[in-house]
Amino acid sequence: MSTDALCDAPLTEVVASLGRRAVSARELVDAYLDRIERQAGLKAFITVTASHARRQAAAADRRLVRRDSAPLLGAPLAIKDLFMTRGVRTTGGSRILRDFIPRRDAAAVSLLRNAGAITLGKLNMHEFAYGVTSSNPFFGIARNPHDPSRIPGGSSGGSAIAVVAGLCAASIGSDTGGSIRIPAALCGCVGLKPTYGAVPFDGVIPLGWSLDHAGPIARTVSDAALLYAVLTGQPPKPVRRPRGLRIGVLSDRLLRPVERGVAAATERALERLQGAGARLREVALPELSMSVAAQLATLRAEASALHRTWLRSRPRDYGRDVRLRLQLGALAPASDYVLAQRARERLRAGLRRAFEQVDVLALPTTPVTAPLVGERKAPWPSEPVDGALVRLTSPFNLTGAPALSLPCGLAGRLPVGLQLVAPWGAEDLLLGAGRLLEDASK
Amino acid sequence: MSTDALCDAPLTEVVASLGRRAVSARELVDAYLDRIERQAGLKAFITVTASHARRQAAAADRRLVRRDSAPLLGAPLAIKDLFMTRGVRTTGGSRILRDFIPRRDAAAVSLLRNAGAITLGKLNMHEFAYGVTSSNPFFGIARNPHDPSRIPGGSSGGSAIAVVAGLCAASIGSDTGGSIRIPAALCGCVGLKPTYGAVPFDGVIPLGWSLDHAGPIARTVSDAALLYAVLTGQPPKPVRRPRGLRIGVLSDRLLRPVERGVAAATERALERLQGAGARLREVALPELSMSVAAQLATLRAEASALHRTWLRSRPRDYGRDVRLRLQLGALAPASDYVLAQRARERLRAGLRRAFEQVDVLALPTTPVTAPLVGERKAPWPSEPVDGALVRLTSPFNLTGAPALSLPCGLAGRLPVGLQLVAPWGAEDLLLGAGRLLEDASK
Repeated sequence: MSTDALCDAPLTEVVASLGRRAVSARELVDAYLDRIERQAGLKAFITVTASHARRQAAAADRRLVRRDSAPLLGAPLAIKDLFMTRGVRTTGGSRILRDFIPRRDAAAVSLLRNAGAITLGKLNMHEFAYGVTSSNPFFGIARNPHDPSRIPGGSSGGSAIAVVAGLCAASIGSDTGGSIRIPAALCGCVGLKPTYGAVPFDGVIPLGWSLDHAGPIARTVSDAALLYAVLTGQPPKPVRRPRGLRIGVLSDRLLRPVERGVAAATERALERLQGAGARLREVALPELSMSVAAQLATLRAEASALHRTWLRSRPRDYGRDVRLRLQLGALAPASDYVLAQRARERLRAGLRRAFEQVDVLALPTTPVTAPLVGERKAPWPSEPVDGALVRLTSPFNLTGAPALSLPCGLAGRLPVGLQLVAPWGAEDLLLGAGRLLEDASK
Repeated sequence: MSTDALCDAPLTEVVASLGRRAVSARELVDAYLDRIERQAGLKAFITVTASHARRQAAAADRRLVRRDSAPLLGAPLAIKDLFMTRGVRTTGGSRILRDFIPRRDAAAVSLLRNAGAITLGKLNMHEFAYGVTSSNPFFGIARNPHDPSRIPGGSSGGSAIAVVAGLCAASIGSDTGGSIRIPAALCGCVGLKPTYGAVPFDGVIPLGWSLDHAGPIARTVSDAALLYAVLTGQPPKPVRRPRGLRIGVLSDRLLRPVERGVAAATERALERLQGAGARLREVALPELSMSVAAQLATLRAEASALHRTWLRSRPRDYGRDVRLRLQLGALAPASDYVLAQRARERLRAGLRRAFEQVDVLALPTTPVTAPLVGERKAPWPSEPVDGALVRLTSPFNLTGAPALSLPCGLAGRLPVGLQLVAPWGAEDLLLGAGRLLEDASK
């Protein structure tokens, strides 16, 4: 495989090629840097650390020559700019932190480095991760590689673009309401939001303490599994396809409205899963209907608590949409937050009951494909586009259950993501279920 | 022992006397009802259910004749008017619920009834449990049996008065910021706030979901242990005094200001505990300094969420102090609540660390003895009397750790309570430590 072709290969293949010295880390880094330059119009990166990456590559190559081994040795990754990186500016996609140079790495970044990964730079995102378009007023409007007139989703937009456009071997992102899974779905790659707390959030600029998750964005389920193992400090292991998987599906009534093409692609994916031996069963989760309100009230309060000082001292330094959200949060009464936590407990209990009947849930990641840049409304009345995008992902931020988005086909020319959800801590099962679909789709 | 003298005996003795038929339940109930009438000026009860109690006594006597056994068979108890009682009005100490007659018993009341207890009536309290004076504007100003010009503490004021004045064999109360322990301390009896969630709160009018606890108020530690067993559905067992108990004490700096007489009584109690083989060790818990603010912000938000409908529709039906608290809550921003939960997590972590070094903590239950009715200020500058009363109890509502208040001497003519705190779920140890002090004080 040519070095350029390897830029589009799964992380597992990149690592294997490096291990058998079919390619050097330096060659790979140069190929990625070349692509990053050519694809600058996608606005995937905020900061490219070319010389730093080349130095890391040289060090990795020395280790590879010595037959050193490490799970990600020499693999060029890229990092959402919400994760602190020692000596490399970490903007959080904001003007406020435009010149912030951390003195330490986020814990997740350290785990990647200790596993031998190389970092190519810091990825574009929605300002402070508080939004799902990644139309960043300070670092550029991130663009969907499938159609640059469309958003990549967010907030980890750059992370998904970089994976899909072959600008890195894999990336990491954060997910507070869907920020890993939404861009994975809209750009057509794999995004894993692990169980709440499974991957350390230490050293990541927080948005909502009780909702913030960190996790991988990658090309394949096995890539996501490899990064998940590294990010949780476990030895990597092969992903096993489960037998006799019981998949729970929700009634149309609970999921509606969903774009016709998204519903059709989801339906076909479920058929492929059945063909691979899974059994489908409709499960009830009526608590889902309160979840967008609960998410909004929870995140507004937590984000406004985190940003209260800057919102007072530097309101003009926020972008318009994020400032408005924070201001709404500052005006929200405490009782709203309390009632949202009650709704959240009911949702958690409902999900626990659902998992007494099935192993995983399957639903669309987003009810729509990638909207146009600047689009405000969903294709149906009275739902804003950002509300629609988080509608099916945020319930699993509220509950903390692990959720995986993976490509399940196209609607027109645009990718559709299927979301699988598993019980708390059951990432192995979740990844296995993802692999089942991936293999059935080949 | 005469029946009247038995009114002042511990619950364990009352149950034993009934069991050996030294007294009948009917005689006991009559004696208590007689006392309740004579002590009506203490305003311990909101509702006395005399004929209901006599019917229950007749049934209990028939079972006693048959040598039936049950842990509380025939024991006349009284119930804080926050607990729903089937067919008996449950006011919550409020005008709003003045005529509310529940169709079911609170779960805790059912547990007492199933254990054979008789209920004499419903006890006075601070309106909706939202305050610590029990100066109730609708059902009368509850009075301290040691000095009727003074408050009994609250919110479970009636529960402590009834125990100390011998108006029932024991009682139950609720504790959201200290409402069991404060009146137990100010009136001179034993109050146990169990681990959060250990005693069911189902069917109790809630005040603050994350802070509400139910538990016993009684004459002795063994009485509290018996009720605790019944309220948690466990078989009663004797209280074992622990050997080599390691008691943590907090620095004066963290506890100050404390009334001189309270400090002296606490000091003497600790000396008695040392005499009984316990070892003292100073432990750090600097997070305590944020806990009153965290308690206030948490409770304001939760109470205002619970009362939001009535506060809009019937604001004039609240007493002045409770209305003000609820209105302050309605104005509190959500970010305050969020930040309070962060402080609460730090406090919980600090307490967990403290329990790595010691078995229990010991500190005064309240920094003051019973204030005068209507008193607004603590005996030192810039602390309101209700703030002082909850200052040392509310940290254990925030953390959910079990805490016991028991009499440890007098300051002048007024009782002083020592508070013992144990790790989550370690009620046996906590009660054992209480027994150690009780025995050493004989």
